Amino acid sequence: MSEATLLQRRHQVMGDASPLFYDEPLELVQGEGVWLIDAAGKRYLDCYNNVPCVGHCHPRVVAAMAEQAATLNIHTRYLNERVVRYAESLTATFADPLDSLMFTCTGSEANELALRMARFATGNKGIIVSDYNYHGNTTTLAAVTTALPSSEPFSAHARAVPIPCLYHADGTPEQVADRYVAKVAEAIAELQAAGVGLAAMLIDTLFANEGIPRLPAGYLERVAKLVREAGGLLIADEVQSGFARTGDHLWGHQSHPLVPDIVTLGKPMGNGFPLAGLVTSRERVESFGRANLYFNTFGGSPVAAAVGQAVLDVIAEEDLQGNARRQGARLSAELHRLAERHSIIGDVRGQGLFFAVELVRDRTSREPAGPEARRIVNAMRQRGVLISKIGGDDNILKIRPPLPFQGEHGELFIHTLDQVLGEL
Amino acid sequence: MSEATLLQRRHQVMGDASPLFYDEPLELVQGEGVWLIDAAGKRYLDCYNNVPCVGHCHPRVVAAMAEQAATLNIHTRYLNERVVRYAESLTATFADPLDSLMFTCTGSEANELALRMARFATGNKGIIVSDYNYHGNTTTLAAVTTALPSSEPFSAHARAVPIPCLYHADGTPEQVADRYVAKVAEAIAELQAAGVGLAAMLIDTLFANEGIPRLPAGYLERVAKLVREAGGLLIADEVQSGFARTGDHLWGHQSHPLVPDIVTLGKPMGNGFPLAGLVTSRERVESFGRANLYFNTFGGSPVAAAVGQAVLDVIAEEDLQGNARRQGARLSAELHRLAERHSIIGDVRGQGLFFAVELVRDRTSREPAGPEARRIVNAMRQRGVLISKIGGDDNILKIRPPLPFQGEHGELFIHTLDQVLGEL
Repeated sequence: MSEATLLQRRHQVMGDASPLFYDEPLELVQGEGVWLIDAAGKRYLDCYNNVPCVGHCHPRVVAAMAEQAATLNIHTRYLNERVVRYAESLTATFADPLDSLMFTCTGSEANELALRMARFATGNKGIIVSDYNYHGNTTTLAAVTTALPSSEPFSAHARAVPIPCLYHADGTPEQVADRYVAKVAEAIAELQAAGVGLAAMLIDTLFANEGIPRLPAGYLERVAKLVREAGGLLIADEVQSGFARTGDHLWGHQSHPLVPDIVTLGKPMGNGFPLAGLVTSRERVESFGRANLYFNTFGGSPVAAAVGQAVLDVIAEEDLQGNARRQGARLSAELHRLAERHSIIGDVRGQGLFFAVELVRDRTSREPAGPEARRIVNAMRQRGVLISKIGGDDNILKIRPPLPFQGEHGELFIHTLDQVLGEL
Repeated sequence: MSEATLLQRRHQVMGDASPLFYDEPLELVQGEGVWLIDAAGKRYLDCYNNVPCVGHCHPRVVAAMAEQAATLNIHTRYLNERVVRYAESLTATFADPLDSLMFTCTGSEANELALRMARFATGNKGIIVSDYNYHGNTTTLAAVTTALPSSEPFSAHARAVPIPCLYHADGTPEQVADRYVAKVAEAIAELQAAGVGLAAMLIDTLFANEGIPRLPAGYLERVAKLVREAGGLLIADEVQSGFARTGDHLWGHQSHPLVPDIVTLGKPMGNGFPLAGLVTSRERVESFGRANLYFNTFGGSPVAAAVGQAVLDVIAEEDLQGNARRQGARLSAELHRLAERHSIIGDVRGQGLFFAVELVRDRTSREPAGPEARRIVNAMRQRGVLISKIGGDDNILKIRPPLPFQGEHGELFIHTLDQVLGEL
């Protein structure tokens, strides 16, 4: 069967607007570690997918899933030791008072629940997000999304604030921080003036969709303080930054001297099994639970728990956090060396095994090189390396491989990118 | 480890309000066909769970999951033949023009998406639901939920209508139909007068939460006509009634001479794997997709597709629809015989392997026997048979076993219920 025929069949049954990567879509049949294999047997180095965080089809995760699915797969209205044990293991990785867990299946559901909880806890309705965010696909989340086309009008109860990046913003770091903290203060004042107050600020503390900006020191802590002074909660979405991705910590927010009020988890949590949830204080979970009968049929099944535990175990035993730190540092150095030879690279930013390589037509004007980014992403795919792009101007290469990424993979990636940039 | 200690540990990490079945919660360790096994090795006949529709831990479903999870588990932004093939198999079971599929992970996500799609397609905002409904746990769905406690205020854009039941309503079936159809007309007029119009009526055509009412002939078709005349869509939630449950058809709505505009699927779709979605016309999927970049990370992965296909295959090859029809008819006859001996049984209703046994203190007044229902559900659990209860007065026994339910299981269930009713 040709890819063209399969694409046609897909259009027929899933519609022609269902999103696909690459100008020439890729038909995949197998995954293994950091590799993906297409229908013709060609191997692709996966430098994009964070869902298979411990590697595609990790045998230990697959075995945990299969074994538990053959034993018991049931919802949480019955007791099950495995589920409780996983919830204990997971919450133990957070600072006080983040000691309790609610299970969902997707990051969208986790962020929905976090916003419901924030509105309930604060009595307020207002939400602050970034001006290039995506936190999920429900009505409420689509109505605060700024990074994707949506038929939902932007919520009258929400405000979108720009996130500072020292590569872009003029002035000293202190001046930049002052300016952007003031924008959050303004948004809070507007929500208060509109009579809805502030329920929560919902952010990915790595700001992955925004292009992993270089934040000025103190910015996030000052924002968190403002949010709390206004009676709101700080919700940290760890769907992209969590599970050892940043190398230095298990959670992205731990790179900053702050503890969020609610942390939402998703994508890498089950290495591809639909597992997500939120972590917050026991008091918050219990007061919400007394006012709401919240139940999630598939959330926190013994299979989900077995998979989630296997992911945590593999991260620890294979030292994938240390690997993200070490390989991330190597890759960072290599990317900076590439920048010396290719003037289209305006900036290299990132943390651990997550990089944003911003492409510009001119280093002084920083004019975004969006079409070039698209050509590069597609040329990399043709040469067997999978990356993507992010940012409001579509000009930032997004590099985010599975965590068992080794030196040889980094070399192949850098070599291929070097060639592609050279042929641009 | 005692159940008391495990319960305490669960409260510690999941909060004390996380819902559990039974006065004495059940610690489960294993599932097999229609059986669930607790930590002490005691076997329980599962007459409640519809998620494991082809039976707990069905080996074929587990093998499909394990094999695909070891091969490739990735999102739908790449092509994959298995995913397209499953979408084709599934949509082939629906009448025209229901030929296209959008994948989600949960029924909540499917109903969210259906409402977003209905509002987009109609340009209206109003939603009609039943007055004892539950369609999901997101903000939008919680704001139209009437069957569970929720901190979300009931939406100003929604109206809840009562569903007719010939056991309860006075008059001829024609009079009852007229009266209850008029309530839908009233709700539509109110939404139009409020300036929001009608986007959709969202219902389970079996009305499972409402207690599987005896609908007067023609009611649903007349309601569907009104909804469409007002420019709204009819959304049929098949999360409880779908996947051969009703015996006569694969889908609950097929018991009525109507074709919904959107069908939402969930719970039994993956036999416990988080798999859900919606089916509608290709035109509707494509026009929504052009205005919205809708993406669901785990929805429609090759693993989800392999599991979903295995469920469809097992339903067909084990003739579980025929089994639901045959065993349902036997069980129905036995329940009616029980009703002759136990005056607390006011009515026996149902379809296929889904029964509502309404308990009353007096057959003339039909005074609900809610506390008795609770005692019966707990006494059945103590005797090794799992059921639950539904309905606004909490007085309706809910009997909904996995579909491979055989005559011997029916006999055990009836025998146990007979004893428990006798000792009441």
